[in-house]
Amino acid sequence: MIPTIFFIFTLLSLSHASSLVVDFCVADYTAPSGPTGYSCKSPKDVTVDDFVYHGLNTSGKTNIFNTSVAFGFDTQFPGLNGLGITIGRLDFGVGGVIPLHTHPRASQLIVVIEGTILAGFVSTDNVAYIKTLHKYDLMVFPQGLLHFQINVGDSNALAFVSLGSANPGIQTLDFALFQSNISTSIITATTLLDADTVEKLKDVFGGSDLKFVVDHESVRNMQY
Amino acid sequence: MIPTIFFIFTLLSLSHASSLVVDFCVADYTAPSGPTGYSCKSPKDVTVDDFVYHGLNTSGKTNIFNTSVAFGFDTQFPGLNGLGITIGRLDFGVGGVIPLHTHPRASQLIVVIEGTILAGFVSTDNVAYIKTLHKYDLMVFPQGLLHFQINVGDSNALAFVSLGSANPGIQTLDFALFQSNISTSIITATTLLDADTVEKLKDVFGGSDLKFVVDHESVRNMQY
Amino acid sequence: MIPTIFFIFTLLSLSHASSLVVDFCVADYTAPSGPTGYSCKSPKDVTVDDFVYHGLNTSGKTNIFNTSVAFGFDTQFPGLNGLGITIGRLDFGVGGVIPLHTHPRASQLIVVIEGTILAGFVSTDNVAYIKTLHKYDLMVFPQGLLHFQINVGDSNALAFVSLGSANPGIQTLDFALFQSNISTSIITATTLLDADTVEKLKDVFGGSDLKFVVDHESVRNMQY
Amino acid sequence: MIPTIFFIFTLLSLSHASSLVVDFCVADYTAPSGPTGYSCKSPKDVTVDDFVYHGLNTSGKTNIFNTSVAFGFDTQFPGLNGLGITIGRLDFGVGGVIPLHTHPRASQLIVVIEGTILAGFVSTDNVAYIKTLHKYDLMVFPQGLLHFQINVGDSNALAFVSLGSANPGIQTLDFALFQSNISTSIITATTLLDADTVEKLKDVFGGSDLKFVVDHESVRNMQY
Amino acid sequence: MIPTIFFIFTLLSLSHASSLVVDFCVADYTAPSGPTGYSCKSPKDVTVDDFVYHGLNTSGKTNIFNTSVAFGFDTQFPGLNGLGITIGRLDFGVGGVIPLHTHPRASQLIVVIEGTILAGFVSTDNVAYIKTLHKYDLMVFPQGLLHFQINVGDSNALAFVSLGSANPGIQTLDFALFQSNISTSIITATTLLDADTVEKLKDVFGGSDLKFVVDHESVRNMQY
Amino acid sequence: MIPTIFFIFTLLSLSHASSLVVDFCVADYTAPSGPTGYSCKSPKDVTVDDFVYHGLNTSGKTNIFNTSVAFGFDTQFPGLNGLGITIGRLDFGVGGVIPLHTHPRASQLIVVIEGTILAGFVSTDNVAYIKTLHKYDLMVFPQGLLHFQINVGDSNALAFVSLGSANPGIQTLDFALFQSNISTSIITATTLLDADTVEKLKDVFGGSDLKFVVDHESVRNMQY
Repeated sequence: MIPTIFFIFTLLSLSHASSLVVDFCVADYTAPSGPTGYSCKSPKDVTVDDFVYHGLNTSGKTNIFNTSVAFGFDTQFPGLNGLGITIGRLDFGVGGVIPLHTHPRASQLIVVIEGTILAGFVSTDNVAYIKTLHKYDLMVFPQGLLHFQINVGDSNALAFVSLGSANPGIQTLDFALFQSNISTSIITATTLLDADTVEKLKDVFGGSDLKFVVDHESVRNMQY
Repeated sequence: MIPTIFFIFTLLSLSHASSLVVDFCVADYTAPSGPTGYSCKSPKDVTVDDFVYHGLNTSGKTNIFNTSVAFGFDTQFPGLNGLGITIGRLDFGVGGVIPLHTHPRASQLIVVIEGTILAGFVSTDNVAYIKTLHKYDLMVFPQGLLHFQINVGDSNALAFVSLGSANPGIQTLDFALFQSNISTSIITATTLLDADTVEKLKDVFGGSDLKFVVDHESVRNMQY
Repeated sequence: MIPTIFFIFTLLSLSHASSLVVDFCVADYTAPSGPTGYSCKSPKDVTVDDFVYHGLNTSGKTNIFNTSVAFGFDTQFPGLNGLGITIGRLDFGVGGVIPLHTHPRASQLIVVIEGTILAGFVSTDNVAYIKTLHKYDLMVFPQGLLHFQINVGDSNALAFVSLGSANPGIQTLDFALFQSNISTSIITATTLLDADTVEKLKDVFGGSDLKFVVDHESVRNMQY
Repeated sequence: MIPTIFFIFTLLSLSHASSLVVDFCVADYTAPSGPTGYSCKSPKDVTVDDFVYHGLNTSGKTNIFNTSVAFGFDTQFPGLNGLGITIGRLDFGVGGVIPLHTHPRASQLIVVIEGTILAGFVSTDNVAYIKTLHKYDLMVFPQGLLHFQINVGDSNALAFVSLGSANPGIQTLDFALFQSNISTSIITATTLLDADTVEKLKDVFGGSDLKFVVDHESVRNMQY
Repeated sequence: MIPTIFFIFTLLSLSHASSLVVDFCVADYTAPSGPTGYSCKSPKDVTVDDFVYHGLNTSGKTNIFNTSVAFGFDTQFPGLNGLGITIGRLDFGVGGVIPLHTHPRASQLIVVIEGTILAGFVSTDNVAYIKTLHKYDLMVFPQGLLHFQINVGDSNALAFVSLGSANPGIQTLDFALFQSNISTSIITATTLLDADTVEKLKDVFGGSDLKFVVDHESVRNMQY
Repeated sequence: MIPTIFFIFTLLSLSHASSLVVDFCVADYTAPSGPTGYSCKSPKDVTVDDFVYHGLNTSGKTNIFNTSVAFGFDTQFPGLNGLGITIGRLDFGVGGVIPLHTHPRASQLIVVIEGTILAGFVSTDNVAYIKTLHKYDLMVFPQGLLHFQINVGDSNALAFVSLGSANPGIQTLDFALFQSNISTSIITATTLLDADTVEKLKDVFGGSDLKFVVDHESVRNMQY
């Protein structure tokens, strides 16, 4: 029974004013974007499927480091727009490596789902914080710092990562240096790498189809 | 007289560059909105009336709880867009109640203008902070927490509330549960309310036209 | 009755981990403060009275402009600390004026409770937006801009203002210029006011006890 | 070989100034906390273990809803302090339910690791967005909105959730209402639940040791 | 040579997903703007020239105070949009003055490049912090506070200023009061300046072509 | 003369309440710091010298790249604490290079004061934006991205940089890799640099005293 403390009144909504829902701003990829994200789809066109993402059901494409990365950024997952978080999936083959990279706009947490992963980051006073992570361990990588993950176990590994931005960005060191349009002379001047090394890595990352032979043991036995 | 420390110079403006005024971003409801608000009306179309709102001159519609709520969100008040605050008006009949609700995106301050109001919120460790407020008392409700206000005086009451967002949102518990499209089985599973109670409240909030008889004394004598 | 979908299990809390409540950070005025506010009082010492403020029950001290201002900043209202909003009370005698001032860190909303108030702000392209406000009208003053309020009615007026910071600051032009330790030569150089005017206003604001005779009509009939 | 574009110079660090590392602010639980988190441990006392958390290695305590929750908030995981993200672990027995709750200070993403989970949230215009999620599906729950998750599969389920705050808070509806110190009369007045229902649920959540019998089918066949 | 720890894999990009670059949001002045800036130009239309600004190569127009100001706000410098900083150039003739002004939305740093500059700001408790700055000195002016700079040396001076917003705004006191559409009666009421002074300064700033004779000594010998 | 619209009232301050000044939070290096900066020195101990910094009067120590960097971070400049900006000074010998680096927590603007500087950054889709900058040109480097500056002129160069944080951090690639405690095997695994190159650069950056002979022409004639 309804409590008797109430009144002879017709039923009226308390929230009649909110004809526009601003609880979310589902990305409308056909309208302009701004510094904080995409324009919002009209709420009447939003469905639950805008808030669900299947893009991590399968791993991404395997790269030269024997890992693959799949992300749900706001560029692919419209419901994330403006909400300040994302999740990505990292698959590691045996000996697989997520090479040194930064996220320019967010800190990152990793949770290991399967396998044994060596992970680390370097602070701006050039101290590396490195740890071997096991199933369901978390590790945090503070915003913008160089970090890496390596599968140091005997089998495939899987991890999910969470970042505090719907579009944190990924800047992988090797791709920035050796897959971009920076000249070798600028790279050598700004890194002190020698030109031969630069040219060789440009060959590796520039689109050629080199084959490598993995040495699993060297990965699992790395000194750190 | 002008001080003599200045110069033979023609008069020129210091601020000639700012052809676009960005001191404000008055909402253009016809252009796209984004995660931080509406697009801006062209400054040359802005008038002082964009910064003034008459929507609190009268109370909102009275609801089943014998209260009414009127708000100046950016959805109705274009000059608020992007400025991060709003003000609302709460009118209470005798025994009137603002039922348990949250604001998902802002903290709230209340100032009592007339009457005696019992107000409270519940923290995430399930402690209720409850107080009787009198004329011109302030009380703050931290962001996102369940809170309520009840007129425990003998006459009508009036309060204004301020929130730290131009669109803080209002999620009223009863409306979310009993006026929405959630099935009874999900509500019972996720609240442990029994199905009969859920169905009865769905009748109350779903559009039927029930009449209640108020018991003023029970409100004023509530135990807390 | 409890739904039958559940289990033979002892009752255990879902939220056992949150021994520290961070829903709020009630100011501990005896500990260090930082860029975002005061240190937090231990949650076990927090009571509901930390969230309630009686400082607006009476008006502030009347100033030379025949107005008074009372505020609940985090400096006096510990529960506000870190929550990003405040409310103040403005009392106007007949012809009373809140002189030109800025809030360096927040936008402001005013709601008129009694009387008729002329209010306005100046944008950075030197356009004034001015309006006469009546009971329960709102007006917004965008962040950091010069603004004022004048009682242009025949009787006292009362308004509450809300700002989007727990410590927005108030910089009143006359007090900054004529009550501070800036030399007259710097004021004349940086404003083009003549030295006589500056000295006269320093006398007014510097502590002397001048008497003024109000001309109510001139206020109510101001051209704007 | 080092490129020859450089100079006869002794080797000196570019970054000699940063004696204090501010890349992170590892929580010092013995010093004051403020609105944005804990004080920072001295960088010289920080080790990699501050950035690693083992608290999700095992599930939390099982609750009356046949689920358990474990979180790495900054209250337990010092390296998270100030970094604006967290990860939690949800374990579901068969028919297990994470009851209706909100996070007052963050949006949430869920990734399903094992099992089939029905998840949903309610917007402030009282529309429920509900979806069945399978392995590695993501779903986002916008900030501060009521949401829930139910294991609708035949076996246990596991999910990880990420939130955009190092201390997002959890306010579970049933615990806030029935495990707190709010009187029954206030609950009935602010929810329209009848007193019998309130008292019964206070018994359930208040510490008694009730036993339930699960009906798996009713969970898997819920209408939604 | 490439380390042998890797695998027989074709070369695939790690970052294939980011077809949209959100590292920057170069202003598209033809699309809507919002509270946080302009819409973004399509990344494929962005060139390095969007990130470079030549507008400080020459000084701005000299004003009545014998100074000139040039800024790279996002209104002129599209690559700044959304990035939260700007730089301006201040040129001072002998005795030149940057008159009292505020930036409503940012703090400011000045670095002196040539000459000797007296700079100061006034806090909200009406204390002026004033200092003579020499070549390469920095001084910070906290957000929203009145401040000024005066060339107190024997020759021209040059400084650059940096502000923590891509559009911090400039509200110069004299222009706001005497170049705007505020009536004299409102100015006198809200400042206690007398009407004659107001009218005289309205003549000075309102477009007339007055000539002044500089008294260099009075500037250099100011008492402060 | 004072306008006659005012009243018979004693002179009272409008702002009597603000006994604590929160316009600024000058760093107290002896008290705890938190995620947003240092604790605040008591306002009564603050002097104008806290807001002034002389640390850029002279260049920093010259490094192996023939450049030097001096910064006014909040770690050295107490008045900056909490204000969100900083300025640094870059001195370039002939051919001097600021090597590839990131700022994890801020975007950067450069203004060239003397000389000709080649500057560039790499976006996360591996496109380099590179430009030759002349006197008083500005260039912006978006948050967290790899960037560099090279003196490509015939004489010394000087620039100032501004960043949108009081402690943006500097992570120089070579120092992070070759001056830190990361093992060679991890570097090779996460970069594909070969071990010989890594060891050689560890010698360069690890404290040895190598001499280089500059080739000015190669710098000035770099292909880009």
